[in-house]
Amino acid sequence: MIEYAQASDEVRAVYDDILATRKTDYINNFWKALAAHPPTLRRTWETLKSIMEPGALDPLTKEMIYLAVSVTNGCGYCTASHTAAARGRGMTDEMHGELMAVVGMANETNRLADGFRVEVDERYR
Amino acid sequence: MIEYAQASDEVRAVYDDILATRKTDYINNFWKALAAHPPTLRRTWETLKSIMEPGALDPLTKEMIYLAVSVTNGCGYCTASHTAAARGRGMTDEMHGELMAVVGMANETNRLADGFRVEVDERYR
Amino acid sequence: MIEYAQASDEVRAVYDDILATRKTDYINNFWKALAAHPPTLRRTWETLKSIMEPGALDPLTKEMIYLAVSVTNGCGYCTASHTAAARGRGMTDEMHGELMAVVGMANETNRLADGFRVEVDERYR
Amino acid sequence: MIEYAQASDEVRAVYDDILATRKTDYINNFWKALAAHPPTLRRTWETLKSIMEPGALDPLTKEMIYLAVSVTNGCGYCTASHTAAARGRGMTDEMHGELMAVVGMANETNRLADGFRVEVDERYR
Amino acid sequence: MIEYAQASDEVRAVYDDILATRKTDYINNFWKALAAHPPTLRRTWETLKSIMEPGALDPLTKEMIYLAVSVTNGCGYCTASHTAAARGRGMTDEMHGELMAVVGMANETNRLADGFRVEVDERYR
Amino acid sequence: MIEYAQASDEVRAVYDDILATRKTDYINNFWKALAAHPPTLRRTWETLKSIMEPGALDPLTKEMIYLAVSVTNGCGYCTASHTAAARGRGMTDEMHGELMAVVGMANETNRLADGFRVEVDERYR
Repeated sequence: MIEYAQASDEVRAVYDDILATRKTDYINNFWKALAAHPPTLRRTWETLKSIMEPGALDPLTKEMIYLAVSVTNGCGYCTASHTAAARGRGMTDEMHGELMAVVGMANETNRLADGFRVEVDERYR
Repeated sequence: MIEYAQASDEVRAVYDDILATRKTDYINNFWKALAAHPPTLRRTWETLKSIMEPGALDPLTKEMIYLAVSVTNGCGYCTASHTAAARGRGMTDEMHGELMAVVGMANETNRLADGFRVEVDERYR
Repeated sequence: MIEYAQASDEVRAVYDDILATRKTDYINNFWKALAAHPPTLRRTWETLKSIMEPGALDPLTKEMIYLAVSVTNGCGYCTASHTAAARGRGMTDEMHGELMAVVGMANETNRLADGFRVEVDERYR
Repeated sequence: MIEYAQASDEVRAVYDDILATRKTDYINNFWKALAAHPPTLRRTWETLKSIMEPGALDPLTKEMIYLAVSVTNGCGYCTASHTAAARGRGMTDEMHGELMAVVGMANETNRLADGFRVEVDERYR
Repeated sequence: MIEYAQASDEVRAVYDDILATRKTDYINNFWKALAAHPPTLRRTWETLKSIMEPGALDPLTKEMIYLAVSVTNGCGYCTASHTAAARGRGMTDEMHGELMAVVGMANETNRLADGFRVEVDERYR
Repeated sequence: MIEYAQASDEVRAVYDDILATRKTDYINNFWKALAAHPPTLRRTWETLKSIMEPGALDPLTKEMIYLAVSVTNGCGYCTASHTAAARGRGMTDEMHGELMAVVGMANETNRLADGFRVEVDERYR
């Protein structure tokens, strides 16, 4: 993990943009780990920043979708950090509970559809 | 697949509830396949109906989360049917594009976090 | 896909063992595809034959476990072929329905456990 | 995590049913975590109780299928708790070893089938 | 799917870069589908182009790694297209067979490690 | 976990072969855990040894493919041990960074292909 004080100019430029964009003074471990490979750090941050901007979907909805994927992939780090991010954007306990219920149910019916080998309906093609 | 006309009373009761709840005259293949095991049909429908009701999250947000999970699991049937359902609830092309961008990015960073073996930050524990 | 008539001696030896072990006259597509790389064909068949023999678990239980994994991985070929194999060993409609119900539920609670970031209980360590 | 002593009436009713059904005096962490969202707690417990009852499949077989799915999904909590549950229902070391062997092999051949892009045999459709 | 002739200027600029970079006259379906959301098309292509360039790893090795991931995720489209791409870069039948053998084995031992709940050795931390 | 000193003759024979083949004096935890079921230990070691031998692909390439799969499956133990193994065979920081970039990207585009429901091009069939 590369700390801010040890960072090369290339890495520090990304760290500074993270701090400014997020209006924070904290670089989380994910970025410090990616800094081991600066092109991956820069590319990942720039893509993430662009994708998570407000657009047709609002930032909280995007964070909850991010969390739904992270839970489905069983990524412990991502589940922890995106739960925090979604709460920071306004996700309440009730919203979290409903989100988890939908994620759990989707995982269940995904397997039922595959297990019963359901063919796609003509109207959904 | 059990068609409406062939359905037992137990199965038909579920089909009727699907038709009434969704205000449609169409039973999609997923339910016709699950009807091979009536307790699973009934339980799955009742749980799904309850989870997808409006609550702290609106139905469109729930459908997009459902779709995010289905895509992440690579479930073809579920991706097709929940894309249709989300569009039916108002998902535009622009929203679909942003949803896919978030889903793709989350799948990428989930693997980067696991691959670089990133430890959870103290503040996210 | 390598058909029996075109098979090299090395491949044919495996095919003959499949036919004799399974008391069938049919080589399914999986083996014909693997025959493109004979060492993988031989190793896979020999390991599979050994693992699926009766032991502390009976062959039907093993087939149902195989099917549970295949459904969870969303492998269409494997779901189709192991559903057939389990039925051939005695899986009834009722058993299939209960198997799918357990597989679906396990996929749901797996995600709930990850999503709520549940710590392992002291007694399960 | 909601402890028994802090639980609301709604949550305590579920806890009491878990204790009575399982003839135990221990609520494991999974349920204490789900209690953060009582409707998800209640629904999950009721569905699980119903699915894991003896039926066409016996409870030990159901637990081993549950474990096979949990291992395949890489769910650490679920693997730990369902290994304990299966042992509690009579899974021996030998049965556990064979179960893991089948799970490992199924994961291997699932990928081989997908990687060699094997088409489903006519007879399995 | 957006064909070249129907493409907006923004989409056509990406298509032209794909054709020039790959020295081909063929746009494959993946890009035509992504063109439904031009920012995702452009970002995905630019990132992919940059990542797949020769670097510390040669392009064939990168393609085989891409294929290994695609097979593990059970992505049918990706397995088909990256098998073709790897063959185009020199992957022989023998290399393909060994690649699949490693992918299959890794999937098997991943589950065994999770199933036996193996703790990370001190020296690998 | 079965230590060398406690191992039965059957287990010790495998341990001795691991030590000799790898020219090391260290048995890692994976094998000590598998030793709980000696047939799985022996079969897994023998298959792994055979698959990871130099062939059409060199051992470092095989290790990186192994790592790509392990990261994609989110297997923490396997990611730690195969990162170490790949480094032992010559993987540099730069190669590791590029490997992770490809793995991340492949996971992203796998989901985009599934999410946009891209049909396989005629020429890739």
